[in-house]
Amino acid sequence: MSDINYSPVVSTRIRLARNIKKYPFPIMLSEEKSNEVIQEIVKVFENDEQLRDRYEINILKRIDMLTKQEMVEHHLISTNLLNEYEKGAVVVSKDKKISIMINEEDHIRIQCLEKGMGIDDAYEAANRMDDILEGSLEYAFNEKLGFLTSCLTNVGTGLRASAMMHLPALKAMGELKRIIQTLSKIGLTVRGAYGEGSEALGNMFQISNQVTLGVSDKDIIEAVKNIIIQLTEKEEKARNFLISNDRLLIEDKIYRSYGVLKNAKLLNYEESMMLLSDVILGIDLGIIEGNNTMLHHIMNNIQPASLQLVYKEELNERERDIKRAEYIGDLLN
Amino acid sequence: MSDINYSPVVSTRIRLARNIKKYPFPIMLSEEKSNEVIQEIVKVFENDEQLRDRYEINILKRIDMLTKQEMVEHHLISTNLLNEYEKGAVVVSKDKKISIMINEEDHIRIQCLEKGMGIDDAYEAANRMDDILEGSLEYAFNEKLGFLTSCLTNVGTGLRASAMMHLPALKAMGELKRIIQTLSKIGLTVRGAYGEGSEALGNMFQISNQVTLGVSDKDIIEAVKNIIIQLTEKEEKARNFLISNDRLLIEDKIYRSYGVLKNAKLLNYEESMMLLSDVILGIDLGIIEGNNTMLHHIMNNIQPASLQLVYKEELNERERDIKRAEYIGDLLN
Repeated sequence: MSDINYSPVVSTRIRLARNIKKYPFPIMLSEEKSNEVIQEIVKVFENDEQLRDRYEINILKRIDMLTKQEMVEHHLISTNLLNEYEKGAVVVSKDKKISIMINEEDHIRIQCLEKGMGIDDAYEAANRMDDILEGSLEYAFNEKLGFLTSCLTNVGTGLRASAMMHLPALKAMGELKRIIQTLSKIGLTVRGAYGEGSEALGNMFQISNQVTLGVSDKDIIEAVKNIIIQLTEKEEKARNFLISNDRLLIEDKIYRSYGVLKNAKLLNYEESMMLLSDVILGIDLGIIEGNNTMLHHIMNNIQPASLQLVYKEELNERERDIKRAEYIGDLLN
Repeated sequence: MSDINYSPVVSTRIRLARNIKKYPFPIMLSEEKSNEVIQEIVKVFENDEQLRDRYEINILKRIDMLTKQEMVEHHLISTNLLNEYEKGAVVVSKDKKISIMINEEDHIRIQCLEKGMGIDDAYEAANRMDDILEGSLEYAFNEKLGFLTSCLTNVGTGLRASAMMHLPALKAMGELKRIIQTLSKIGLTVRGAYGEGSEALGNMFQISNQVTLGVSDKDIIEAVKNIIIQLTEKEEKARNFLISNDRLLIEDKIYRSYGVLKNAKLLNYEESMMLLSDVILGIDLGIIEGNNTMLHHIMNNIQPASLQLVYKEELNERERDIKRAEYIGDLLN
């Protein structure tokens, strides 16, 4: 797959929720017992030379807060796990495409990420990791229900398939509200980049399945894929409409956003995301030159914790706004 | 005087209102009689070799509308005279610093413009022109009242002294309203760049005297000069306050405006003026490099008629917004 992604599909992700039979769900575990769970899972990686080389084990309580926050910002761990970090760990592949959260809502959460429409690759990678772990651990599984999970919404396949999509034109045309309502009727949700309750910054929307019980993995993935394709088409139609309606108006908006990003001395995260969204759209539409991979990289690194780690210093909000403007101004073409 | 002006005083202007004794005021004149008045005044310039070389005579009905509108935009004629152009003319010095409107409210309106705080020079130039005209024409003059004019507010000296001031900091701090009220109590007015009823675009304000009766030329000029100096001090204090309060916030605003001016594809006149005002302030404060003479030149030429004459084509509003963005983007450093 090309490194440059000119489609609205920024990335796709598979998540599998699994639990170890002999332990209660994480919410019921003492810190000591949580450590046992961590050790059981970590052993799988430590005992295999190949895995040991390719994965990094992070016991969260041994890691500083900023780095943990950066992990949230880069989707390696969830806000939930950050809040329960004394009991948690995360195993991350060196290419950052696979992360296994330990003692989040479930003992094991395998997450596989692919750029663009890579949902099949992500599913394959998740399955391989699932097989590896199942080779050493006895999962909580019920013949009738499937995989048992802490939260009912994950019982069954324990699978969540999702896509991060950049939908500026649908947003601009006010069509997303209706789409979100329609999707919820067929068991899919649309949220901001950080899941439930998170705002969609920079026109980035996360589409994922809600239901995991009584459906097969294949059903879920097909349903999500189907919606990704439909949303891609709708977004492209909306872009074409905007362009054919008044190309110059779009060009003006995009260039203004570029001009502000390139020249501002103070940029907060929300505004930066909005302006970067315009520039990404501009590159997608061939209106301005640039590299969307770089822009997604910028979007990642201008988050509060990530930015502080880029500059290797603790920064208050004002200082972050200054450094964010500096960082974006320097990296933008 | 330096060509570059880093003070809030953009320009100063003297206007003298005069009438020829043997004719009724312009409002009472037929087109034929108006022409007689024009010829009387034009003769003064045509009969003198030096004046002939240095002044251009423009009979307004012989000039196309766009050029007449440009004359308004460049303050060579007033909107009043444009509306009555069939009866009017204007004599303009080649350096555009002196213009003599014929058959505006009064038969003769001598206007002298100087960059920056040049009010004394402007007054001198206006007086020289007044003497020249008085040498050949008999003015309507009353020993008790002074010069007789069509509108009562000009009776007496017929003198208006004014300054165009760039007051972004006073505007930003919301202090102008109070200042305007105070000035009106001492017979001075603050208006937009195009006089009564015109909006102050780009934080450009015209300060001038209201009263001309019962005061001497000297009194008027001293009063206006005094206010220019006071406003300059107040504006500078306001700028210092803004800078010391949060320099970065000001820098951010200025650079954003610069970024939009440099990158936008559509710019209307009002927004352009507002953004250019920020850039001028930025140059004044040493925040960005640039040449304020160039920026005032841009402000002049992006007006609707002037812009069309720059591009030598008739442009509708949308086309002007496009060309204005192009023009500014090209000329801005």
